[in-house]
Formats: sequence, C-alpha cells, structure tokens
Amino acid sequence: MVNHYTADLNCDMGEGFGAFDIGNDEAILPFVSSANIACGFHAGDPGVMKKTVRLALTHGVAIGAHPGLPDLQGFGRREMAISPEEAYDMVVYQIGALAAFVKSEGGSMQHVKPHGALYNMAAANKGLAIAIAEAVYKVDPELILYGLSGSALIHAGTTIGLQVANEVFADRTYQQDGSLTSRKQANALITDHELAIAQVIKMIKEGQVFSQQGTSVSIKADTICIHGDGRSAVAFAKGIYAAFKEEGITLSAPNQTNSIANNSAE
Amino acid sequence: MVNHYTADLNCDMGEGFGAFDIGNDEAILPFVSSANIACGFHAGDPGVMKKTVRLALTHGVAIGAHPGLPDLQGFGRREMAISPEEAYDMVVYQIGALAAFVKSEGGSMQHVKPHGALYNMAAANKGLAIAIAEAVYKVDPELILYGLSGSALIHAGTTIGLQVANEVFADRTYQQDGSLTSRKQANALITDHELAIAQVIKMIKEGQVFSQQGTSVSIKADTICIHGDGRSAVAFAKGIYAAFKEEGITLSAPNQTNSIANNSAE
Amino acid sequence: MVNHYTADLNCDMGEGFGAFDIGNDEAILPFVSSANIACGFHAGDPGVMKKTVRLALTHGVAIGAHPGLPDLQGFGRREMAISPEEAYDMVVYQIGALAAFVKSEGGSMQHVKPHGALYNMAAANKGLAIAIAEAVYKVDPELILYGLSGSALIHAGTTIGLQVANEVFADRTYQQDGSLTSRKQANALITDHELAIAQVIKMIKEGQVFSQQGTSVSIKADTICIHGDGRSAVAFAKGIYAAFKEEGITLSAPNQTNSIANNSAE
Amino acid sequence: MVNHYTADLNCDMGEGFGAFDIGNDEAILPFVSSANIACGFHAGDPGVMKKTVRLALTHGVAIGAHPGLPDLQGFGRREMAISPEEAYDMVVYQIGALAAFVKSEGGSMQHVKPHGALYNMAAANKGLAIAIAEAVYKVDPELILYGLSGSALIHAGTTIGLQVANEVFADRTYQQDGSLTSRKQANALITDHELAIAQVIKMIKEGQVFSQQGTSVSIKADTICIHGDGRSAVAFAKGIYAAFKEEGITLSAPNQTNSIANNSAE
Repeated sequence: MVNHYTADLNCDMGEGFGAFDIGNDEAILPFVSSANIACGFHAGDPGVMKKTVRLALTHGVAIGAHPGLPDLQGFGRREMAISPEEAYDMVVYQIGALAAFVKSEGGSMQHVKPHGALYNMAAANKGLAIAIAEAVYKVDPELILYGLSGSALIHAGTTIGLQVANEVFADRTYQQDGSLTSRKQANALITDHELAIAQVIKMIKEGQVFSQQGTSVSIKADTICIHGDGRSAVAFAKGIYAAFKEEGITLSAPNQTNSIANNSAE
Repeated sequence: MVNHYTADLNCDMGEGFGAFDIGNDEAILPFVSSANIACGFHAGDPGVMKKTVRLALTHGVAIGAHPGLPDLQGFGRREMAISPEEAYDMVVYQIGALAAFVKSEGGSMQHVKPHGALYNMAAANKGLAIAIAEAVYKVDPELILYGLSGSALIHAGTTIGLQVANEVFADRTYQQDGSLTSRKQANALITDHELAIAQVIKMIKEGQVFSQQGTSVSIKADTICIHGDGRSAVAFAKGIYAAFKEEGITLSAPNQTNSIANNSAE
Repeated sequence: MVNHYTADLNCDMGEGFGAFDIGNDEAILPFVSSANIACGFHAGDPGVMKKTVRLALTHGVAIGAHPGLPDLQGFGRREMAISPEEAYDMVVYQIGALAAFVKSEGGSMQHVKPHGALYNMAAANKGLAIAIAEAVYKVDPELILYGLSGSALIHAGTTIGLQVANEVFADRTYQQDGSLTSRKQANALITDHELAIAQVIKMIKEGQVFSQQGTSVSIKADTICIHGDGRSAVAFAKGIYAAFKEEGITLSAPNQTNSIANNSAE
Repeated sequence: MVNHYTADLNCDMGEGFGAFDIGNDEAILPFVSSANIACGFHAGDPGVMKKTVRLALTHGVAIGAHPGLPDLQGFGRREMAISPEEAYDMVVYQIGALAAFVKSEGGSMQHVKPHGALYNMAAANKGLAIAIAEAVYKVDPELILYGLSGSALIHAGTTIGLQVANEVFADRTYQQDGSLTSRKQANALITDHELAIAQVIKMIKEGQVFSQQGTSVSIKADTICIHGDGRSAVAFAKGIYAAFKEEGITLSAPNQTNSIANNSAE
C-alpha cells in the first residue's frame, strides 16, 4: 500500500434556519466526501435537515450529525458552562433527531462531529469528551467520532471503542505543540488558498505540519475540514479537490475506506 | 376469547423543562401501561427525556413519542397554521430525538401520539393526518399510531399500513356523532371519578358511550388517556386501575397485546 | 394646500438573527421615511435591534416597532391561535424592548406595525385588533399605529384614540372590496416595477386603486410598504423614490407631517 | 438619625413560563420591599411579566428588572462566554421589555438586578460589569443597580453615576475576603433560619459578617436577597420581616429611602 493515500474532506452543512439561509451546500457537495449536518440547536431546523440529508444522499456524500450547544443566536460558538451529563443528553438528542431523517430517507449515518464551542470544549475538557463519546457510543457504536486531531475527544472516543477520525484544518495555522493557533491571534488563518492546500497535502502525505514557530510537527490527518460559508468557500473546495487528484490522494469518507480495507459492508 | 377484555391506559409524561416541573410521573407510572413522552418542542428537554425514559423502562411501561408544535410558551396547545410538510418534518425530528434515548437506554419505542393542538388538528385535517402518519411510517413502520378514536389521523394511519390505537378519554363527554364535547362548552369535563370510570368500562366492554344528547354511540376504545397533571390525577389513575381489576379487564399496552395475539416478538 | 401630496414609505428592517442575515437595510434606508424594526420574536435579536436603530437614526428615518408572533422558525408568518390577551402581552413586550434601544440611542419611537401573521390576523379579527391597539396605547398614546388600510386594526386604533396610518402595498393587487388579493391566487403580486409605481401614485393622488375586477376602488394611502428583501428591492425603492420627486409627492414620515401641520414638536 | 436602620428585602419573582410555574410570589410579596421580575430570557414570559408587575404594584413593592442569559433550559444559571457588547444588548432589551409593562400598568421601575450566571459574571468580570452598568444608565440613569456587595458590578455602577444597592444574602456564608462561599463547598448555605436572620441583622446594624474563617468582616448591606422558591421560603420571609420589626429596622426599598432622605419625589 505504498504511495497510496486516502483522505476525507468534510464540511458543515444544513446551517440555515427557517427563512434564514447560510452556506453553499449544493455548490460544495460535489467536492467533499462527508457532510456534518446541523441538528436544530445551533442551526438547522427539521425542514432544513430533511432537505440537507436528501442533498447529501443525492451526491453520495457520507452523513454525520453535527450537534451544537442550545444557542441559536450565538450559532453555538459561545462556550457554556454545561455539565458532562448535559453534554451527553444534548448529543443523544441531536443524533437521534438527525438519524430519523437519515433513516426515513433511506440512508445511514456515518459519523458525529460536535460543533463550535462544543467541539472546542470537548477537545480540551476530559469530562465533556468522555460524556460525548459515551453519548455517541450508546446511540450507535458503529458511528465514527470526528474530533480535533489528537484531542481529548479523540482519546475518549478511542477509549470507549469508537472508530475516530482525527480532524485537521486547511485554513488554520498550528502551534509547535500541535494545537491550533487561537483565532484571537494574528496569523490564525491561512487566507492564501495555495498555502492552505500545500499544508493539507503535507499533513496527509507526511503526517507533518509546519508550526508558527517554524518547526515541523507530527499530526494525524484522517479528515480535513472545509468551511462552507464565506465568499471563496466553493473555489477553495474545488481547489483542494483538484489537488487531491493531482497528488494521487483518494477522496473517501472513513466508512468507505473501512469498507474497502475490511472488505465488509457495515 | 369471550368475556376477555384488554385495554391500554396511557398518560402524557416528561413534560418538565429545565428548572420547571409538571406532572406526577413517578406516582402515576405504576398504574398505566403506556407513557407518551414529550420531545422538546411543547415540553421536555434532553435531560427530562432521558430521565423519563428510564422511569418508564423501570416500570415496564411502553414508551411512545409525544411530538408537539414548536411552542413551549403555549405548551403546544395553540393551533398553528403549519403545512403538512412542516408537520411531517417536526414529527420525524421529535420521534428521532426520543428514539435515541430509548435506544441508548436499551428499550424500544412502541408508539407515537401527537400532542395538544397537533393532535386536534390531525384529528380533523386530512392533509396533516396523512403527513403525520407518513412521518411515523417512514421512521419506523412498526410504530403504533395513537389518535382520537375514529379520527382522520386513525384513518390515515390505517391507510398507510400502521397499527393504530383508537384513543378515548375518561374525563371528557361525547357528542352523538362520537366527537368530544368542546372544552368551550359546559359539561365538557367529567369531574366525578366514578362517572368517568363507568364511562371507560362501558366503552371498553360495550364499545358504546352515552352522548350528551342521551343516545348511546358506538366508539372504539383501544387506549384510554389519563391526565397526569392536576391534583387528583394520581387518585384517578389508582381508581381506574382498581376498576380494571374488578371488571376483569387486562391492562396491557398494544404491543404486548399483539405479542400475545400473534405469538410473535416484534 | 391644493396639489400638495405627502406620503410615507415604510420598510421592514432588522430582520437578521445572530449569524443569520436578511435584507438590505443600509441600501434601502436612503429611500424610505419609516423603518419597522423587528423585536426578537419573529426575527431580530438585541444586537441586530441596536444596530438597526442606529442605522435608522443616522439616516433620519422614523423608527417603529415591528412586533410579531413568537415563531422564529416560521418568521412570524404562520397564524397561531392566540387570545387577545396574549396578543396584548406580546405587543407590549416587544414595543418595550425596542423602545429601550431607541431611548438609549437618543431617538424616539414613532410607530408600531404588527408583522406577518399578526398583521393579517389583526386586520380581520376585531378582538385581536382591539387588544393590539390597547397595547400600543397603554405603552405610549403618542405612537402611531400602522395597519392595513381600512382594516379592523385601523378602526381599533382610531376608536382607542391613536393616530393611525393606513397602509397600502405597491406590489400587491387589490379586490373590488378593497382587500388584498390572496397570495394563494395568481396575480396577487405586481412584479412589473412601473405598474407598481403607477398604482402607488394613483393611490396617493386620487385615493383610488384599480381592482382585479376592473373597477376603481377608494383606498386611503397614508403609508406605502416597500419590501426590503428580494433581489430587486433596492432598485424598486430607488424607483419609487424617484417617482415621488417627479410627481411632486413629499416623502415624509407621519410624525413629521404632523409636526408641520400642527406646527408643534411632539 | 442615631439608632435608625433601614434595609431593603428583595426577592426574585415572575419566574414562571407559559404553563410552567415556580415560586410563591403572592405569598412572599407582603414581606418584601423590592421585586426582581424575570424578563423572558431565563424565565418569565410576557403574560407572567404583566401579572407579576400588577401583583407588585398591588402590594406597593418596588419593581426591578431581572435580566438573565438567553438560556431558559438552564434557568440562566449556566455561564456563557458572552462579550460585553452582548451583555449590554441583552440588558437593554430586557429592561425595556419589563419597563413597558410597568409603564402600561401605571407604575415606575426602581432598579435592575442581573440574574444567576449574569449576576455572578458581572460581580467578577470588569468588562461585563461596565457593559451592564452602561446599559442600565443609557436606558434610564435614575435606575438603581443591584449587585453583589462590593463587587465589580457595584463599582461599575458607581463609576458611571448610578445609585447602587449592595446586596447581601441571608442564607449564604461568607469568606474572610468578603466573598460568598462557593456553592460547591459544604457550609455554603445557612439552613437554620435563626442563624440566617441573626447574620442579616448583624450585617445591617454593624456592617459586619462572621466569615467561615471565624473573623468578622466588613460588608455593606443595602439590600438583602430572599429566595422565593423552596419549601420554607415563605416562612423565612415572615421570619425576617418579624425580626426587622423587633429590631427596629425599617423595611424600605431604596427609592423610598431616597425620597425620604432627599425629600424629593423622583
């Protein structure tokens, strides 16, 4: 299996709410392998969820639940002092709500990726990470848990027996300890598309990323997050998709990778 | 099977929200066979749902989803001009959310019973009735649909291929066309426990109810709704439970009845 | 005062919510005299409200509260079976919330215009109309009540002692009884900008509108509603603004008209 | 004015929501001088607010806005990572909403006291404290700001030019630096009514409180918080009311105290 690389491109989707619309789901779906669909707490409503599940199925893109904090106004980006039990409960609820649409549309759910502040808190806070991993496992132990590469959430998922996907970011810079540069700092974002793509290719092929301190740092890159909002989101999705082709990287959702590797349908 | 009667007693449960509490779930559970658990729209939150599912499982009471309109302030009792598609979407969502708790707690969901204004609208409005029946069927065709006895919802459920349960009310009076007396009229409620119990026994054993016009009207009584709030709710639940014993009526949730009748596990 | 015409152009504004944005407030403000600002129930949040109040003050546009039903997902467009008392309560609440931003930014509130389904219900339902008029009056009797021209809400406002503004629509067609053609019918909307502008000019100058039945119908046009969303909203606003100039119609909010007429600051 | 003591007893009220009820407002109102009324974010809805304002006016109890975080499920008790601007906005909104009910019922608003996590964050976080004080001041500079005795919120209020009321708690223990013992520690609460009353009397008369470390600590006690929920809330309210009489302490809301002192109606 020398010289063969596989990676997943995931994107947050279904983040409209009622009359409000956000994102470019239809334009981006052709270029990604996994869709994280909002579940009604930080964004999304039942109608948006159904429509987005249908779109993902039409494009053959793997579906994941994207549970967030109960904070529509803050788009789930404001940290809240929730207990592990509250995190467990809200993740079970949101996975279930999306799962019903996936099932009623004849699909199957592949993964769960927490959103925004819940994602960030779960990356650092062991108690929340364990609670979230347990919620995923108790609803369906076949679900794949997406989390920040090397984070507490990834460790919790592995410990409980879930398949995990270490997530990296194309357009974020890294520190020498492998963490993301805080958005409060300058240079947190990579706005140059070519640099961002180069970083992704390096992470996939070499398992390394250049840190802001100039060192090369080991990083596990099972899945790459693409942002779906913003003006250049579609152009960037196309660019990274093209780079994958050029570099011989197979674009594939984790469950498909598994299917191939294990030669077993789930 | 002469002289053998079976009926289901159901009660709305899990209708607290956050710091707010309503009802007497623990006190009533010993006396009913089915629990309709609120799903977060008109009442209930993820923590309350988990706790209520656990309670129902502990008592061996069958679990149903109790989806309502997205109107927490109005407790789902104010009619809203929703489209059939919106009804479909909100029912799929809420069934799914509760299903995740039922599954994660090791149980299985038996039924779905719409709440409040959604229940009333679905009883009269064909379009909404069909949309709700379709939502239930698409999520899980084994679910039993509870609806007002003889209503549009019951017909829609039967048409689509769902098992249905015709619901009657112990403490409501009936009109000669078999409909409930509107709550806006005097005599809509039966406040005397003995009269209410006598009405229930008659409906189960004879398939008849005395209407406000003095005539005896045919009515199908698969399941009887007990109200869980109010001061005398627990006393009434005990009373009807005792009357069932005395009258030789077996208290049983529909899925158990089926299991016995068909001699087949679901 | 022969040959002198004055009219108000109003537009719904501040209809974003959190990360969600809607409308073209900044582009349209130069061309209107009154802004109806959402108050957090059907749209708007505290941050959006403050920003929109500031924008309106910067442009010298009169500010009104735009209260709606508590239905963010439905954008306040789904009728709800609320009682007159509930209507009263939600209108008082929302006027107050916006009033605090107007006051804290150094402005004053001119008017109240109900939104969407609340507007439509108040146009036809006397009980709701009276409750809403009373809510406005009790909070501040100097507020001007905007409502559908000739509707129950206008009558209720006049009866209770409020100044009212009869609202007409540039882009909607009318029936021979002076009512709007239902949106469910074809020809409900006038999509041709020139025709829409001609209708407005005729309503202002002649107090007449051509109905779909071909007759000319009397109509009172104190204020004209411009829709702020949609692709051509800004172009239409500019067009009607230009037509006013050409036709010698003074664009003026009702409170300014009053000031001139009565020669008294409020 | 030797030997003459005056203090305010305040209690959170109007914390129901729709069909959900909490607290004992009617039973407690006879024994307090100020009511902090929830404004719809952490609790309360427009109908509950109107009813509570009426109750407070009937009892001659001073009315304050009790703004909280937008977290109904968490009852405003879960800290959220909001910015100072967001705090400003949500406080302006909530004061305004309540002010409309106070005005429409013919009363006047005396004070503002943040609720739960917003109160706690404002006690410690300078940026939030300044934002909240500014919100109060910009809406109405005559409002009195209630905050934890000696906290950042009190300092911010004084700095901006607001009258403030230093709040102490009857049923909480104190540390030797004057802070409250964390609820996470044992001995945080004083459950013995006599001890709690003795602590209050000492704080009012001597400006001192015994800390958990055994030392006597200086504390300013302008207003004492009584909790309105819980089984013994009414009994405690009666007890402290009786103790005030016995000890010659005049129960009086701050605005009344001022009126007397300054001999000027506001």
